[in-house]
Amino acid sequence: MNDRTTVASLPTADDIRNAAARIAAHAVVTPVMRNAALDALAGAELYFKCEHLQRSGAFKFRGACNAVWSLDDAEAARGVVTHSSGNHGNALAVAAATRGIPAHVVVPEGAVQAKVDAIAAAGATLHRCAPTQAARETACAQVQADTGATLVHPYTDVRVMAGQGTAALELLQQAGTLDALITPVGGGGLASGCAVMAHAIVPDLRLFAAEPAGADDAARSLAQGRRVTDVVPDTLCDGLRATLGEPNFAALRQHHVEILTVSDDDTVAAMKLMWQHLKQVVEPSSATVLAMLLRHRGRFAGKRLGVVLSGGNVDLDALPW
Amino acid sequence: MNDRTTVASLPTADDIRNAAARIAAHAVVTPVMRNAALDALAGAELYFKCEHLQRSGAFKFRGACNAVWSLDDAEAARGVVTHSSGNHGNALAVAAATRGIPAHVVVPEGAVQAKVDAIAAAGATLHRCAPTQAARETACAQVQADTGATLVHPYTDVRVMAGQGTAALELLQQAGTLDALITPVGGGGLASGCAVMAHAIVPDLRLFAAEPAGADDAARSLAQGRRVTDVVPDTLCDGLRATLGEPNFAALRQHHVEILTVSDDDTVAAMKLMWQHLKQVVEPSSATVLAMLLRHRGRFAGKRLGVVLSGGNVDLDALPW
Repeated sequence: MNDRTTVASLPTADDIRNAAARIAAHAVVTPVMRNAALDALAGAELYFKCEHLQRSGAFKFRGACNAVWSLDDAEAARGVVTHSSGNHGNALAVAAATRGIPAHVVVPEGAVQAKVDAIAAAGATLHRCAPTQAARETACAQVQADTGATLVHPYTDVRVMAGQGTAALELLQQAGTLDALITPVGGGGLASGCAVMAHAIVPDLRLFAAEPAGADDAARSLAQGRRVTDVVPDTLCDGLRATLGEPNFAALRQHHVEILTVSDDDTVAAMKLMWQHLKQVVEPSSATVLAMLLRHRGRFAGKRLGVVLSGGNVDLDALPW
Repeated sequence: MNDRTTVASLPTADDIRNAAARIAAHAVVTPVMRNAALDALAGAELYFKCEHLQRSGAFKFRGACNAVWSLDDAEAARGVVTHSSGNHGNALAVAAATRGIPAHVVVPEGAVQAKVDAIAAAGATLHRCAPTQAARETACAQVQADTGATLVHPYTDVRVMAGQGTAALELLQQAGTLDALITPVGGGGLASGCAVMAHAIVPDLRLFAAEPAGADDAARSLAQGRRVTDVVPDTLCDGLRATLGEPNFAALRQHHVEILTVSDDDTVAAMKLMWQHLKQVVEPSSATVLAMLLRHRGRFAGKRLGVVLSGGNVDLDALPW
């Protein structure tokens, strides 16, 4: 993390609106889907923001694209680099391709093969490393030293958070009045960007995030009032294993985002329900939100809920049921 | 088949436009999806008409809904009956529910369990029978005798064909100028309704249908100039096992629909590609069309192709790969 100024700050609502304009030529305005069967199961009105239909198959393209197109020409020419278990790496590779600049992606061992393949297919240079935070950062630093590429952190980068916040901007425009907005939370890029944007539009909107019980560092961090960084993730939600970032933690506190944890069993059941009824291929991380709603049915009864489906990059040969 | 007048005739373009008006309050105007990765694989521009997002998860709702709302009140009160391996039965059950009338569905043994469950969930009365055409028709006739219900044949009923043709009407409105329209073909309800409608709008539009090689009675019928009815279906495309109907055969001949057969292996590979890239849960029957396009890549190079994705009712615990 060589750019402390960038890393430490949060995006403003204007940053997010600017990001929306910056990525408009490249990103998909994803549809919002409704489903009567899932509404009945949840006992609420669900507005699914379909980020699995975003370019690269995940919301991550928003942030990556905003970062790539925020660079000046000299920076851009040296390329971008990141570490990612999958979706952010893929998104950065696709985003870099929209500007014709090099992308380097540090991929930890154990990442979902379908995601690694997609990163390579998008034209990025892959750099393998051990599956630890330290190894990821060391490998990234090496690529930066070798190439002069700009680091685009998956979730602490302010440009990335701003890009992710555009999902909430669109959803609130598309769905009309909502009682609450719900995202999954891993590193917190999506949850924090959406929190900033949502509260700028609807100051009293209730905000929730679903987190796997086996990677509940965000829930613990908010409960303890300090960032808990020693949770060893044990969840099949491969997109939510990252440790909550510093600025992301600050955003979740500031915006009173309530985090509810879900078991992997509940997530897999919810994922099947979404495939069956919505007919959408969403990845486990995306299903945490429905799992949460079904587990806490009473709390959300009759509400109009905006739900961000984060991605749809699944290894079809290794489904979790 | 107690209503020979209804069975023997083909819908006109006006019948189809009337059907569109009749079902408008109940059916979904399904989206048309594009996908860069699949376009690149096919070497053509593909416009996917997403009937897996139709009510009941298949285009079948269009025809069933048109039939149900074509009945006069006295007929309607006695209910409707059909035999179906799945999607039509489910569609008729859901359509009957929109009018609050009884639905009876004769289900042959061996039907996909997820589809049978959906029929029951929609409130229809199930009647089991052996998996032969004769057993289906006998059981239907018994229900008609017992209840006075109106038979709604899955594909030879003119009201059903008219309803299915509304998919082509919408697609041609949504996608703009196309070089060809492609559907799967089983009993021929979709292919015939779409052929009538498409040629009424664009008289020289090329029409194709994809058929499983293991249930190629339609291809043989067109090749031999007479309806071949002795093919014993052997395909995992459970929606395409029916024998081409008499009026459907007439429509396919009249409209010069060219049928190309596909192997189940190609269909499964195409289905995976669609799940992976489109992120849509489509059933094997829907994937026959992409399988056909990939197998005959040269013939369709550079063309703008309308492709009807017929349904998305899949048993997620028994995927074909």
